[in-house]
Amino acid sequence: MPDVAKASPREAYYSQIARQRMSPLWESLHSLVPKAPRPQAVPEIWKYAQLREFVLKAGDIISAEEAIRRVLVLENPGLPGKSSLTPNLYGGLQLILPGEIAPSHRHTQSALRFIVEGKGAWTAVDGERTTMHPGDFIITPSWTWHDHGNPSEEEGGEPVIWLDGLDIPLLLQLDAGFAESHPEMMQPVSRTEGDSFARFGHNMAPVRYKATGQTSPIFSYPYERSREALDTLYRCGELDDWDGVKLRYVNPMTGGWPIPTMATFMQFLPGGYKGRSSRSTDSTVYCVVEGTGVARIGDHIFTFSPHDIFVVPSWHLVQLEAEVDAVLFSYSDRPVLTALNLLREERI
Amino acid sequence: MPDVAKASPREAYYSQIARQRMSPLWESLHSLVPKAPRPQAVPEIWKYAQLREFVLKAGDIISAEEAIRRVLVLENPGLPGKSSLTPNLYGGLQLILPGEIAPSHRHTQSALRFIVEGKGAWTAVDGERTTMHPGDFIITPSWTWHDHGNPSEEEGGEPVIWLDGLDIPLLLQLDAGFAESHPEMMQPVSRTEGDSFARFGHNMAPVRYKATGQTSPIFSYPYERSREALDTLYRCGELDDWDGVKLRYVNPMTGGWPIPTMATFMQFLPGGYKGRSSRSTDSTVYCVVEGTGVARIGDHIFTFSPHDIFVVPSWHLVQLEAEVDAVLFSYSDRPVLTALNLLREERI
Amino acid sequence: MPDVAKASPREAYYSQIARQRMSPLWESLHSLVPKAPRPQAVPEIWKYAQLREFVLKAGDIISAEEAIRRVLVLENPGLPGKSSLTPNLYGGLQLILPGEIAPSHRHTQSALRFIVEGKGAWTAVDGERTTMHPGDFIITPSWTWHDHGNPSEEEGGEPVIWLDGLDIPLLLQLDAGFAESHPEMMQPVSRTEGDSFARFGHNMAPVRYKATGQTSPIFSYPYERSREALDTLYRCGELDDWDGVKLRYVNPMTGGWPIPTMATFMQFLPGGYKGRSSRSTDSTVYCVVEGTGVARIGDHIFTFSPHDIFVVPSWHLVQLEAEVDAVLFSYSDRPVLTALNLLREERI
Amino acid sequence: MPDVAKASPREAYYSQIARQRMSPLWESLHSLVPKAPRPQAVPEIWKYAQLREFVLKAGDIISAEEAIRRVLVLENPGLPGKSSLTPNLYGGLQLILPGEIAPSHRHTQSALRFIVEGKGAWTAVDGERTTMHPGDFIITPSWTWHDHGNPSEEEGGEPVIWLDGLDIPLLLQLDAGFAESHPEMMQPVSRTEGDSFARFGHNMAPVRYKATGQTSPIFSYPYERSREALDTLYRCGELDDWDGVKLRYVNPMTGGWPIPTMATFMQFLPGGYKGRSSRSTDSTVYCVVEGTGVARIGDHIFTFSPHDIFVVPSWHLVQLEAEVDAVLFSYSDRPVLTALNLLREERI
Repeated sequence: MPDVAKASPREAYYSQIARQRMSPLWESLHSLVPKAPRPQAVPEIWKYAQLREFVLKAGDIISAEEAIRRVLVLENPGLPGKSSLTPNLYGGLQLILPGEIAPSHRHTQSALRFIVEGKGAWTAVDGERTTMHPGDFIITPSWTWHDHGNPSEEEGGEPVIWLDGLDIPLLLQLDAGFAESHPEMMQPVSRTEGDSFARFGHNMAPVRYKATGQTSPIFSYPYERSREALDTLYRCGELDDWDGVKLRYVNPMTGGWPIPTMATFMQFLPGGYKGRSSRSTDSTVYCVVEGTGVARIGDHIFTFSPHDIFVVPSWHLVQLEAEVDAVLFSYSDRPVLTALNLLREERI
Repeated sequence: MPDVAKASPREAYYSQIARQRMSPLWESLHSLVPKAPRPQAVPEIWKYAQLREFVLKAGDIISAEEAIRRVLVLENPGLPGKSSLTPNLYGGLQLILPGEIAPSHRHTQSALRFIVEGKGAWTAVDGERTTMHPGDFIITPSWTWHDHGNPSEEEGGEPVIWLDGLDIPLLLQLDAGFAESHPEMMQPVSRTEGDSFARFGHNMAPVRYKATGQTSPIFSYPYERSREALDTLYRCGELDDWDGVKLRYVNPMTGGWPIPTMATFMQFLPGGYKGRSSRSTDSTVYCVVEGTGVARIGDHIFTFSPHDIFVVPSWHLVQLEAEVDAVLFSYSDRPVLTALNLLREERI
Repeated sequence: MPDVAKASPREAYYSQIARQRMSPLWESLHSLVPKAPRPQAVPEIWKYAQLREFVLKAGDIISAEEAIRRVLVLENPGLPGKSSLTPNLYGGLQLILPGEIAPSHRHTQSALRFIVEGKGAWTAVDGERTTMHPGDFIITPSWTWHDHGNPSEEEGGEPVIWLDGLDIPLLLQLDAGFAESHPEMMQPVSRTEGDSFARFGHNMAPVRYKATGQTSPIFSYPYERSREALDTLYRCGELDDWDGVKLRYVNPMTGGWPIPTMATFMQFLPGGYKGRSSRSTDSTVYCVVEGTGVARIGDHIFTFSPHDIFVVPSWHLVQLEAEVDAVLFSYSDRPVLTALNLLREERI
Repeated sequence: MPDVAKASPREAYYSQIARQRMSPLWESLHSLVPKAPRPQAVPEIWKYAQLREFVLKAGDIISAEEAIRRVLVLENPGLPGKSSLTPNLYGGLQLILPGEIAPSHRHTQSALRFIVEGKGAWTAVDGERTTMHPGDFIITPSWTWHDHGNPSEEEGGEPVIWLDGLDIPLLLQLDAGFAESHPEMMQPVSRTEGDSFARFGHNMAPVRYKATGQTSPIFSYPYERSREALDTLYRCGELDDWDGVKLRYVNPMTGGWPIPTMATFMQFLPGGYKGRSSRSTDSTVYCVVEGTGVARIGDHIFTFSPHDIFVVPSWHLVQLEAEVDAVLFSYSDRPVLTALNLLREERI
């Protein structure tokens, strides 16, 4: 720490160099290069029971078409005005009503959809539609045309709500965001539903396919299969002291993450499970699929119920308990940290 | 070509250097460095209708336990005495009768099993058993303990025949073969059947899994799913002029081949399909799963029926036709050529 | 854009959801997901002739030991209070006087040193010292102990100034910064100077070396060799219309960047060269090594002289001219954008 | 082992199945799947003092142009008629006299040249010539045009002898060999000597270079630099109990081998050094550069002198001693074994 007696000539010097757009590192070194991460993001939970009415009310406030995307953005109180859940991750609840269309566009931001409530709506990506069911994890890769729609009430449409997860804040930080609107409301459908899953979903791949990026060629990871995998493993005796039964979603063409900037996970905690504490340098957003329990994050204690959303900032200890059998979906910026060799984890 | 008049002093010189364990390159350059591959392996077909009785008769000749592996090796007539179908690939038909066990061992050779006939027998790999059904593709990775067994007749066992594909000739060439017998007939079963498929088969993976090699952690690729993928793609309109609908099996942790030395494929040719000609530097073994048709390989024309096995040597033109809807399984040494940057392909 | 007449009920709704820590995406979509990057960082130049006296004066203001690192941080006027040149990159001028030591510490931030003036000072990394010469590019990898020192005047020490480039702002964004002080002022020297260059600098490597990360095992890239490479290529006729003769520094164990988060380049522009315009999504910091010229960046025109430092923010057009033969060192956050598949470039 | 009493019905059966091109695995299992490698190649040494006159005499027997390549092939006595030193590797001594040209061609076989004696001859690869000096390691990558030449005596040319190392036997095994003659004796020279080294030899690379394969873009690894690296490391205290000071050559764009099928090494053994024993599944060819010593390979003991060439087959114990300071160059098929996950090593 600089000596107080010397401060005055130093202050004069600091003013001089400020005019040169320079500042003394030694006054800010400890905050620029901290001993350990000091996130501004804070642990927080959004209780779905409270939010649901507001999400539905958005349907009266604005149409999907006018809004382009009718989403309520969840804002971390520690990151005010940033439309962020964590420094790199955005999360919001999107509503699409029967008969509506969210118009086609594309952007360099990657998006995930995790279906919370309702079924039958669809997302179209690269000419192929995927029908949504609660618990499905669906991706819209960077720079791919995508639009969403919902059959009319006559066709059996019902309001559908999903959690959007995007890397919007990261791309703002990287100054790497580009976007375009499609000339049409909906992109043309050029492939049968199920086409990409048939090509890549069965541990096989077309013989001449060449991967061109890191993004998964599978657009939909159905809950039915994820749930079955968790069940089978639990019956096989798998149960980690920290994570319960925890799987990560995989791009089957690389073994890596389905999205190059966001990791996604699904885990099962049997009723009565009390996990141990761990922390890591990725920041995670959880969405409860089934069951109830308690999440202890840093100094916060949150009880959770289905569809609740909670956030674990970097390097905060997290510890999970299940009252009854619980299933949690989560996403984090882990691929970014891993790519840059900056992931650090600790299990206690 | 050396001049004839000069031959005599050259011959004397050749004798002198031969004593130094040397030879003149200029006399053998053209055969050592040919303009194009000149395989010794020849195109050939084995008609299952003819072989079947011999395979079953092997059950009278020797027991599975005495034989260690009761297999009839298919020998390419161009590679006599080499127990090889192609320079790098071995193929044989294995029979296991109700109540028998093929004792546990491990070796650096990688093996694939493609189930031809009968069901209910099992392969155990690394403590986990997999039940066999016709059309399933099962792997026993390099240096993993594996044994095979069949329930007794009382338990519903029936004779089961499968095609073994191994890289035995390659490993002889590489002088890299090691083998060990397990102290017990059968390795202990330590994991529930389906465990590895639950972990890795659903485009997900255990969150802390680290791949340690290139071999797939999935041991079984069930026919039911491969067949469904082919069907769906065909209905989606996929049909290549050379390959019909052709998928390769994938290690979902890498996007590469399930086995580091052998590629595996499954393809569908609709009745009436007449494919165009192509060739490549990998050598391929086909096993017919369903249907009938014609394979033109170099100057050979083979009609094929279910369970027939035929061989396409390197750089031979191959052209496939289906009389009725046909499904073909195949394996080749493509990963070896690809890893060494030596795969060359031509479509005509 | 939302319709004005509807604003009032909307405003009420917005207040309600704000209490739930939610906001309407449709009001901020265009700024969150822009058509193209809108960097807050601005083009700027720091003229070394003006700065030099302030850097030297820092030697009177504080000692290297008290400061830990006696550095004047260059601050982008568009990013006030952030100690940043670009969103992800920090740059500062460090002074070390004869006889001084900058004490040993380590941190997860990666650092590069580009020597501006003076010679004979050293950087120690992982037990090996490297002597600095102007134009040398030296790295201190993430989480490696490092200290700097300068021989006393009696031993021929002279003031040495270098440019520090670090990924400090990126690690703040990622909440991934950790740091530790070494128990001693200087870490013990355990290896002879030149050891790592002998191991890895000659297109060879120790036969049993296993790379454990993405960081280069070479700590110093001497100017003598970089300059010779540029000269030879220029004599060989290499001259790109946009870049002149431009080389990137390489980690010879991967072919990638020496540092996982920062790309580094050295380029030669012959006197009279007028480059064409290009832009990309990485943000770049240039440091002039030799020569004079003009840099046009967006709407700014900067004339540059030796040791000047200038900044090109993301997606700003840049065009370089040399009055006399010029050599430019530069560093950018390109590896981050590449790792996440977000690099976009345009040449005009 | 099959029971003798049962042999007769079995023999009949064996004859029957032989007509079906089948054989009983159980009779050959132990030789096809051995407990450990049983190479047919044997340890052997070629004493340069004995060979030299024969190599030079080849200059009287045939011209470089007529021979295409005037090479005496070294043949492993365990692999008669195969023009092989090991199952996958070829080695031969090539002579080129002043004024001669070895005409331009290309082939999928990769080649290395290790210069034994004489200087001033050149190899041209992809339009760039490299001048040879004793101890230099030069590559001619797969499918690149290459020719060799030697200035006339008037221009100072002298007889030059080098060791050619190729993967000819491997490509025969893989049926992957293609070759073409260039329409001209010599390919046109399109790049200045030193161009590729300036681009890639200094731990830098052209900013827009994209690697297209695994082969090194550096064609020449000069002895001067390799020798200096070994010297520096030895002075730094490096000395392995098995290998002395051993470096591998590196493709600086990947960190891997310069050639995808052949590893290359250079090692220094100080006078008096007695190495310990080790073995591995790659087969290695050594060429002595400097010094004398003893190589114990399996049951063989060879004393070696400069330019002697000796062979270590797979899984043979090797132990090296130096009488006076010795430098050994070596090449092996290690990349093939590594790519297929078949490298096994043991140090005793």
